[in-house]
Amino acid sequence: MQNLEFKNKHILSTGDLSRRELLVILDTAERMEGCVKEQGICPLLDRSLIAMLFLEPSTRTRLSFEAAALRLGARTISVSEAGSSSVAKGETLADTIRVVAGYADCIVLRQPRQGQAAAAAGLIRIPLINAGDGAGQHPTQALLDLYTIRRELGTLDSLKVALVGDLKYGRTVHSLFYALLPFGPQFIFCAPRELEMPGHIMEHAAENRLPVSRTEQLEDALGADVIYMTRIQKERFTDQAEYERLKDSYVLSRALIERVNKDILIMHPLPRVNEISGDVDGLARAAYFRQAHNGMYVRMALLALVLGADIP
Amino acid sequence: MQNLEFKNKHILSTGDLSRRELLVILDTAERMEGCVKEQGICPLLDRSLIAMLFLEPSTRTRLSFEAAALRLGARTISVSEAGSSSVAKGETLADTIRVVAGYADCIVLRQPRQGQAAAAAGLIRIPLINAGDGAGQHPTQALLDLYTIRRELGTLDSLKVALVGDLKYGRTVHSLFYALLPFGPQFIFCAPRELEMPGHIMEHAAENRLPVSRTEQLEDALGADVIYMTRIQKERFTDQAEYERLKDSYVLSRALIERVNKDILIMHPLPRVNEISGDVDGLARAAYFRQAHNGMYVRMALLALVLGADIP
Amino acid sequence: MQNLEFKNKHILSTGDLSRRELLVILDTAERMEGCVKEQGICPLLDRSLIAMLFLEPSTRTRLSFEAAALRLGARTISVSEAGSSSVAKGETLADTIRVVAGYADCIVLRQPRQGQAAAAAGLIRIPLINAGDGAGQHPTQALLDLYTIRRELGTLDSLKVALVGDLKYGRTVHSLFYALLPFGPQFIFCAPRELEMPGHIMEHAAENRLPVSRTEQLEDALGADVIYMTRIQKERFTDQAEYERLKDSYVLSRALIERVNKDILIMHPLPRVNEISGDVDGLARAAYFRQAHNGMYVRMALLALVLGADIP
Repeated sequence: MQNLEFKNKHILSTGDLSRRELLVILDTAERMEGCVKEQGICPLLDRSLIAMLFLEPSTRTRLSFEAAALRLGARTISVSEAGSSSVAKGETLADTIRVVAGYADCIVLRQPRQGQAAAAAGLIRIPLINAGDGAGQHPTQALLDLYTIRRELGTLDSLKVALVGDLKYGRTVHSLFYALLPFGPQFIFCAPRELEMPGHIMEHAAENRLPVSRTEQLEDALGADVIYMTRIQKERFTDQAEYERLKDSYVLSRALIERVNKDILIMHPLPRVNEISGDVDGLARAAYFRQAHNGMYVRMALLALVLGADIP
Repeated sequence: MQNLEFKNKHILSTGDLSRRELLVILDTAERMEGCVKEQGICPLLDRSLIAMLFLEPSTRTRLSFEAAALRLGARTISVSEAGSSSVAKGETLADTIRVVAGYADCIVLRQPRQGQAAAAAGLIRIPLINAGDGAGQHPTQALLDLYTIRRELGTLDSLKVALVGDLKYGRTVHSLFYALLPFGPQFIFCAPRELEMPGHIMEHAAENRLPVSRTEQLEDALGADVIYMTRIQKERFTDQAEYERLKDSYVLSRALIERVNKDILIMHPLPRVNEISGDVDGLARAAYFRQAHNGMYVRMALLALVLGADIP
Repeated sequence: MQNLEFKNKHILSTGDLSRRELLVILDTAERMEGCVKEQGICPLLDRSLIAMLFLEPSTRTRLSFEAAALRLGARTISVSEAGSSSVAKGETLADTIRVVAGYADCIVLRQPRQGQAAAAAGLIRIPLINAGDGAGQHPTQALLDLYTIRRELGTLDSLKVALVGDLKYGRTVHSLFYALLPFGPQFIFCAPRELEMPGHIMEHAAENRLPVSRTEQLEDALGADVIYMTRIQKERFTDQAEYERLKDSYVLSRALIERVNKDILIMHPLPRVNEISGDVDGLARAAYFRQAHNGMYVRMALLALVLGADIP
């Protein structure tokens, strides 16, 4: 089946994608997972060269995208160090992108400035996938989160999702918020007062009359179907006493889960530091490593779709 | 067609190559371009492993060579950081080269010391391609420049070529000077007095009675068929007042081109900083991004030739 | 022939391997060498993706493993910089390994802490190959040393092997000592007093009644069948006068070899600094570059075996 609606499209943010388009991507990812588990390599892109431009450090996302490309039989060229790139020598991102677009059939771009992924996409005729633009979008992370929830719970519709931790600066929770909107979610926002959801999210929730509850207590978040943990970084607090007071209250432990809600799906974008205890790893509902693995299938799906592969 | 005259040869400098050999390389590059545009991958080297040793930072050249190798179906291993290489641990370049020659079928070498590419080539039985040796040679840059001129203008013969900017230290303009010699060129050398062509070039031009004119005025350079811009670096000037006086006079703008010679072919080895205004990019004769892209086809041609591939 | 005894096994140390298992690996490496020399690529693993996690700098070992994987037709993803990895952001090695195990079919791991390779292997269901864990094991180095000795001398049995240089801290000589044990070796340990073999090796030799002689004179070591040189590092000495006295006495020269024993096989794990003179390189028995090249065949053998390839 060749799905031409994504061919040559840029993937810049999840906000661009309709419910139907999101489901096409998740269904394609499911096919990719089946194909990799059966055959190892699914050579849908064995005539393609994909450029991985990681202009800020992000080893995990780079490896996941490279694995995705290689599992599709594609070739890859990679820049993984800001320091060694021409960008560092004073060249503009625009020139770098135009040069690389002459070598490759698709560009995966990670760079630190919000909005620059969209600007770069406007300069070239090959598809570009945004792999994170600073405080902006990280659409493949939100897509792999959706994929994981659907795979673990069987549905995306009408779920109660608790987003926990640094909701102010956390790019992943913002992207996931928007990606879930077409599926009628309820939300629990659980954060210290200093790290609450930004105004644009709260307004969007109000406008759409989304059921949202807010709490500072981790235990309240455990009433959801899904708990999505993120890290609280010391450097975000102006008041260090406030940080010291809070830091241990946002650590998810096995004891807490088993006492309050042992059926809750536990997610985390990784890397974690200590916000999920090691003893949680063994729980059947601890999905964060599977979540990371799912990133490869979702990225395979996107690469195959934007390059117009004939999906089996 | 198998062209065995290049098989197992090192590519060290353009000065080693006759007019006929240069044309064989350009014709092969043309075939590579056709093949990539038709099929994406031209698996002429799908039994080969190529080592990319970039012992000084040069992201663009590395990506171009890797793309070339991968478009030929070859495998690549790469070193792209001086800091992480064994060379940094005190090993000689000679030992590194001899070890890597046992893993790979061809070595592409970039390193900062003039003459060391030739020395390295003398130690091994597999072909070596010089991807830049400090102030010395960068033959693939000169070849892609030739390829671009021929592709854009239809010929290399009897052209008037203006070389502009830092002619004293600019490795690319020196290599291009020598590479053009077999084609009966005329030259305009346009540079500030502090950055004029070095003696060996001027002597070579005099001995061969080449028509050469010299100027400090960018406008004079626009009388040529081709204008080849390079960057003027502040740190080259002993007299900073002289730099301040000159820097803006070596900026090529759309207005200037349209006023003086709108048919001139505009080239630049990239990265540029501001010596070509952004408004020039949209001109049909602005060839510098195509020039960069052509690097991939020229490098494919060289890899295919030195590894004895059967060229279609 | 499919050899299933290694399938899905971790390769952590040579001490785990019996004489028979060692010989299976060497025989497989021999087949790999024949296959590469005939065909360039032996696509036994063209459905596999292998992760190269080099969390401390080790360019040579990384290139050798990548070449091995690619010569088998496998795909590779690589981390080659501690600085750019998630480990540097505070993530534990355990989490990194569990994430990468979801992308790849096999992990090659180099990291600086002794024992951590085994700990990492315990967390995952895909095979892991230890490519060096600090002062601990480096099993593929010992295996390529065995392969080289057998290839050059026709046998591994009952050889007299001189280990020279820094025997106290030298991981490679310790691994080689243990790897040779099943073959009834005699040893000459040649080192300055400050850098003698550690107690655990001397005790092991005594318990097994191995013929071992000790000397400080390089010339005495030349009575062996094989001389295995290693570097003496200035920083190992507390007494700098002692270092100055000794450093030139551990330099192997052509004159010394030709005077004392021109049939001795000369090995070195590389990189060397000056402990083998350049004039030795031309001797037929100078095997150290071939030794490095053999690393690729031995690593191919291990990858093919642990991934259950059908060995030709």
